[in-house]
Amino acid sequence: MSLPKLAVTMGDPAGVGPEICLHLLANPAIREICVPVIFGDAAVLVRCAREAGIAAPQRIIAQFDWPQVIKTLDTPAVLDLHGFDQSGFMPGTVSAATGAAAYGYVIESIRAAQVGEVAAVVTAPMNKEALHAAGIHYPGHTEIFAEETQAKRSCMAFFSDELNCSLVTVHVGYQEVPALLSAQRILDVIELTADAVRKIRGRAPKLAVCGLNPHAGEHGLFGNREEEEIILPAIEAARKQGLDVIGPLPPDTAFISSRRRCTDAFICMYHDQALIPLKALAFDSAVNTTLGLPIVRTSVDHGTACDIAWQGKADPNSLYEAVKLAVKLSQPTGR
Amino acid sequence: MSLPKLAVTMGDPAGVGPEICLHLLANPAIREICVPVIFGDAAVLVRCAREAGIAAPQRIIAQFDWPQVIKTLDTPAVLDLHGFDQSGFMPGTVSAATGAAAYGYVIESIRAAQVGEVAAVVTAPMNKEALHAAGIHYPGHTEIFAEETQAKRSCMAFFSDELNCSLVTVHVGYQEVPALLSAQRILDVIELTADAVRKIRGRAPKLAVCGLNPHAGEHGLFGNREEEEIILPAIEAARKQGLDVIGPLPPDTAFISSRRRCTDAFICMYHDQALIPLKALAFDSAVNTTLGLPIVRTSVDHGTACDIAWQGKADPNSLYEAVKLAVKLSQPTGR
Repeated sequence: MSLPKLAVTMGDPAGVGPEICLHLLANPAIREICVPVIFGDAAVLVRCAREAGIAAPQRIIAQFDWPQVIKTLDTPAVLDLHGFDQSGFMPGTVSAATGAAAYGYVIESIRAAQVGEVAAVVTAPMNKEALHAAGIHYPGHTEIFAEETQAKRSCMAFFSDELNCSLVTVHVGYQEVPALLSAQRILDVIELTADAVRKIRGRAPKLAVCGLNPHAGEHGLFGNREEEEIILPAIEAARKQGLDVIGPLPPDTAFISSRRRCTDAFICMYHDQALIPLKALAFDSAVNTTLGLPIVRTSVDHGTACDIAWQGKADPNSLYEAVKLAVKLSQPTGR
Repeated sequence: MSLPKLAVTMGDPAGVGPEICLHLLANPAIREICVPVIFGDAAVLVRCAREAGIAAPQRIIAQFDWPQVIKTLDTPAVLDLHGFDQSGFMPGTVSAATGAAAYGYVIESIRAAQVGEVAAVVTAPMNKEALHAAGIHYPGHTEIFAEETQAKRSCMAFFSDELNCSLVTVHVGYQEVPALLSAQRILDVIELTADAVRKIRGRAPKLAVCGLNPHAGEHGLFGNREEEEIILPAIEAARKQGLDVIGPLPPDTAFISSRRRCTDAFICMYHDQALIPLKALAFDSAVNTTLGLPIVRTSVDHGTACDIAWQGKADPNSLYEAVKLAVKLSQPTGR
């Protein structure tokens, strides 16, 4: 059986994306599970390899040759997209040019996954300021993937050694969250999470859904009974499908260690309900993924870190973890 | 120098309060730092000692004798308040009688602290359902202490081995939080926290203030600019007083380990922003306290745990930690 081919976007050229991609290409453990192809600019990678003291890429594929080469590719490679004019390019700085290039790598990787050239997409970090400077207004990768693939329903999820979380709402203001909650949306996220965890664990998952209010509203004492009127109906609908789901849990005790040990994934109502415990407990091992897309997509869980970019200091571990998760999620389901 | 005398409320008689108080009375390390007096019912403690297999209290003080005895008390004791009629009393069950008794212990302990008979109050858990059954409608101890002492400003705070957090809002619904935030309230909480941490650490504290929105609003991209318009002005006012305060921090990265190590306390905008990381990281060591009261008050960080009450299974460690913190906070300030 041949190894799955993965598109790995290079991320913003000015950030740590290029150097972690170089580490990935040279990693023998990665070669054993997949064939990674960096979607980026070869000249950037070659220059970064020299400046950061990392091995240069061994194989570079021109866009013209790609449709033929990818069919039989069996070694790590770079797809050279010539994303931007590098005259005046300064690593570690924000610019419209690198923002536009990073966006282009993502669009190309999505296309490659949609036509089946690659089994999954793994993304290195973009810089939101650079994207905005380039006139590209997305809060993050998740929204780009959802729009480009016209996914009917999708959700952001995080997997780590310590806990896994899926998000009902993501990049919206604190105040806007309650109005965005619905039983249908929560049920969608429960179902998407159950599917993903079933693939990863190879068995029926144990899920827990958090409440919205302190103490999960304490029987209506706090809040507007979102637990009883919105969250609980979603849990009950999921149980009717045979899913093992508990909740709504008081959010503050949901993530204590004894609860984490017996929960495969938590369904969280808002960004920080998931990301606070995730980053407090598993800052280095968390992988970000978008569930519900017609393609598999995972991502590193860090930003462009321009302050340390191109210095050979960036830790590629989050990218390795993202690649491993993409391989697991792209396997044919055992369901 | 004589040891400080502490009032320790027995909590709801039906919960784990009585047995953790019995452990406290018998603990030699506690005797070295303070003189604890359990404010509760002696008959309940004697019965609990027998049923749970813990040493019975050695010294019981009648209310009539209290004003004289407390002046020279130098050994752990029980102040017998005869809080309720124990006919039909069933440990581990919710009842109006035990709720009213638990409330009575708290009121007596506050009075003893206000008149200087004790240096601080440490509270064991009450049962909110039992309180409600008794017609007593407070969300928790914090609100009772604030009202009884007519504190002009106060805040709930948590201290633990892993992190310390103070709360700008506490027991309110998710939706109500933004309207309750003001620069003055946040400044009050910063000041109260700085005072407490200065006492505990014996030096100028390093404080961090969390934002409200994901990514602290990302320069107005999410939310209603609460970070710029409410939180930042409070931070700037605190800095003008010479306080070392950073923020508003993106809440999700505020609690990562590298940030925790260089932060004495976090100022959190809402209940779960503080309690999720606190319980995920330090479930067993956290102590709850109310800052800004004219008296010192700390509390265990767990509930009545009626399911295991009176079986000798309850862990008294949180109560020990609460007593130790009360001793530190009741020392004359070195400011």
